[in-house]
Amino acid sequence: MQEIDLLIEARWIIPIEPSDVTLEHHALAINAGRIVGLAPAELAKTQFLPRRKLSLSSHVLLPGLINLHAHAAMTLLRGYADDINFADWRNQRIRPAEIRLVSPDFVRDGTMLACAEMLRGGVTCFNDMYFYPGQAAEAAVRLGMRATLGILTMEFPSSYAADADDYLSKGLAARDSLLDQPLISFCMAPHAPRSVSDKSFERIATLAAQLDLPIHIHLHESIQEIEESVQQHGVRPLERLRRLGLLGPSMIAVDAVRLEANEIALLAEQCCSIAHCPTSNMKLGHGSAPVVDLAQRGVRIGLGSDGAASNNRLDLFREMNHAALLAKVSAGDATVLDAHAALRMATINGAAALGQDKCIGSLEPGKLADICAVAFDDASLAPCFDPASHLVHVAGREHVSHVWIGGEARVSDGKLLVIETAELLDIANLWHNRLSS
Amino acid sequence: MQEIDLLIEARWIIPIEPSDVTLEHHALAINAGRIVGLAPAELAKTQFLPRRKLSLSSHVLLPGLINLHAHAAMTLLRGYADDINFADWRNQRIRPAEIRLVSPDFVRDGTMLACAEMLRGGVTCFNDMYFYPGQAAEAAVRLGMRATLGILTMEFPSSYAADADDYLSKGLAARDSLLDQPLISFCMAPHAPRSVSDKSFERIATLAAQLDLPIHIHLHESIQEIEESVQQHGVRPLERLRRLGLLGPSMIAVDAVRLEANEIALLAEQCCSIAHCPTSNMKLGHGSAPVVDLAQRGVRIGLGSDGAASNNRLDLFREMNHAALLAKVSAGDATVLDAHAALRMATINGAAALGQDKCIGSLEPGKLADICAVAFDDASLAPCFDPASHLVHVAGREHVSHVWIGGEARVSDGKLLVIETAELLDIANLWHNRLSS
Repeated sequence: MQEIDLLIEARWIIPIEPSDVTLEHHALAINAGRIVGLAPAELAKTQFLPRRKLSLSSHVLLPGLINLHAHAAMTLLRGYADDINFADWRNQRIRPAEIRLVSPDFVRDGTMLACAEMLRGGVTCFNDMYFYPGQAAEAAVRLGMRATLGILTMEFPSSYAADADDYLSKGLAARDSLLDQPLISFCMAPHAPRSVSDKSFERIATLAAQLDLPIHIHLHESIQEIEESVQQHGVRPLERLRRLGLLGPSMIAVDAVRLEANEIALLAEQCCSIAHCPTSNMKLGHGSAPVVDLAQRGVRIGLGSDGAASNNRLDLFREMNHAALLAKVSAGDATVLDAHAALRMATINGAAALGQDKCIGSLEPGKLADICAVAFDDASLAPCFDPASHLVHVAGREHVSHVWIGGEARVSDGKLLVIETAELLDIANLWHNRLSS
Repeated sequence: MQEIDLLIEARWIIPIEPSDVTLEHHALAINAGRIVGLAPAELAKTQFLPRRKLSLSSHVLLPGLINLHAHAAMTLLRGYADDINFADWRNQRIRPAEIRLVSPDFVRDGTMLACAEMLRGGVTCFNDMYFYPGQAAEAAVRLGMRATLGILTMEFPSSYAADADDYLSKGLAARDSLLDQPLISFCMAPHAPRSVSDKSFERIATLAAQLDLPIHIHLHESIQEIEESVQQHGVRPLERLRRLGLLGPSMIAVDAVRLEANEIALLAEQCCSIAHCPTSNMKLGHGSAPVVDLAQRGVRIGLGSDGAASNNRLDLFREMNHAALLAKVSAGDATVLDAHAALRMATINGAAALGQDKCIGSLEPGKLADICAVAFDDASLAPCFDPASHLVHVAGREHVSHVWIGGEARVSDGKLLVIETAELLDIANLWHNRLSS
């Protein structure tokens, strides 16, 4: 009998790896922050001697969800620019607000609000892109959330940095100061092709290779972006990045709505990943990323919420649902992007895109215990014929009952353990007032 | 000072009529099941002497939502046929299950489960189409929900009826027996052009005119349906219905995905209504109804959940969100179908389609007190710049705190008052076992 910290028995477990599997009446064994066993519940009782035991008799256990594209601090701008076109969204609403307000406090507070929302909704890891990544990391550490922070780079000055070199050096300094934080990692985050010069891209490619970091960039989100690139650089943005040496397994292309057939082939050939943001793409009227074609060519697709100014929830359950619905309606085919495919997008695919699929993204012995439990005892979820399809098409983040990160509980019986609602509402209220004044 | 039953003070009230208005710190006065006043909270205190007072300090009050197209009893088949094409969905999964199981008990139980889900989610009225409408009405009456039941008509025999005449006489008998139920009304419900003969359609047109009932029919959902009609009748289904005299203000065309420009003009000219079912249309891969064009031509558009075998939630918050997202992505324009337009679809437009907009669909003095309150004190909803946009893009049915129908509370502080969860789970479990055996 092996002594362990925690044994969780669950009605269903969807481990993600192996794929397309739903286990019934199994138990997950956790010790020292890692998964150490997964076995039928009856067998597990004979194998493990747990210091704590939890029986989740009407729940599904699955890996914590991974949000592959967020601007967490923008949660303070939730719903600040709805029902307007993208140029006005950016130029008339979001940028002026950011110029007025963005500061270390704004990023720390906004990221805290975002982490609370994501944790409560079963998200255990997010890939972020925003100003002041060091302060975003601070917020994630305080709430005990796993995060990959972008070393944001653009040519334009902000309160945070003066030019591309300044952005890079500040981001690298933040990374250096947080190397000992087990929950925190970094990636290169050139903002977008339109806002980064060739020279900066070359430096970013070098740094990503030297430091072995993913590269996280908005790419082919809108027609305008592509037309601008053709005018200024003679080629579409993806081809420009190829020439500059940025494509490869470390590339996470966000949005990827506008792709031609040869570009899909190129992304596949270069083993790039996509951060698909279906809700944001729909809400901003940008279109539908060709996820069925991308997946058929073997391109890895994770899911992102984007920021709360363009979504307006940081809700991976909703992204799974919307990815499935948008793929089906775009293809005119109800069979594409089935439930297990959507679940993989929100878990193992995101982990692999971040280069962390050895540690997270599935419930396999040896991996970190980042886990989400969803309670199916709500009559609005009954009956249930297939828990996987229920997770994508019926359940919502409101049904998340428990969340663990590295074996530590962050949500228990539907209650967020790491921060009080009153503090979060105070934060939101403060910045709402500053923005409205 | 006027004595009244109940005064509800709320942080915000969105009355729907007048349109595009969000009132702050107002109060709604209710007496004998009707709204008798709407005024600034301070003023209301001087006008009304309430026997009960409720202060909803962080809530939005809006009219109860109206589900303009449901197959409520099919909630027992929730998620029973996912990720398969529509022909298989119908022929391999749903019809065989219905042939085996549909009975008066199935419909009563399934509709009870559906009513519980809808009430809990802020829906106060639904327009239904299924076998055994009398038993569906019984379930709605038991749970205190407003419902319009379809007098289902098709040529095919079922356990319920032998042929079209039999469907009609049974539906009319159910209506006769329920004429004294204030919550219940009926409509004609020819199932679809493919399943109803010209002769039956003519009889339905006559009955609808004689009895002053709406006509509720699936129309132009799929390409196959239209091709079949052209082959068999020489014209597309809408033109066939026009020739048979079915178009007019009482027509509620469900789905209406495939429409040509002249058909949109015809629907407008005839003052028809559309029951738009965005989630079902996306999930089944059918496409996107041209709601922007329809609305521009003045066609009234309400929202429907469709049945839980093709959605899989009876959730009007989700339908509002999906209607907005699908319209924006289809038009490539973030400005179309703004939040107030989505709210009108889910309230006053549904009421008008059912011919009940003198009684329900907005918070106006004189109307029945069908009301929904949504609590905005969840940190995942903060900050809030525009409550209307928050209702469509951020809040979900999980934030519904109170529901009244005709002034009677059905949900209070998030708890459904009319039936216990245990009874609902027992019902779902029983039919799940029968279906799986």
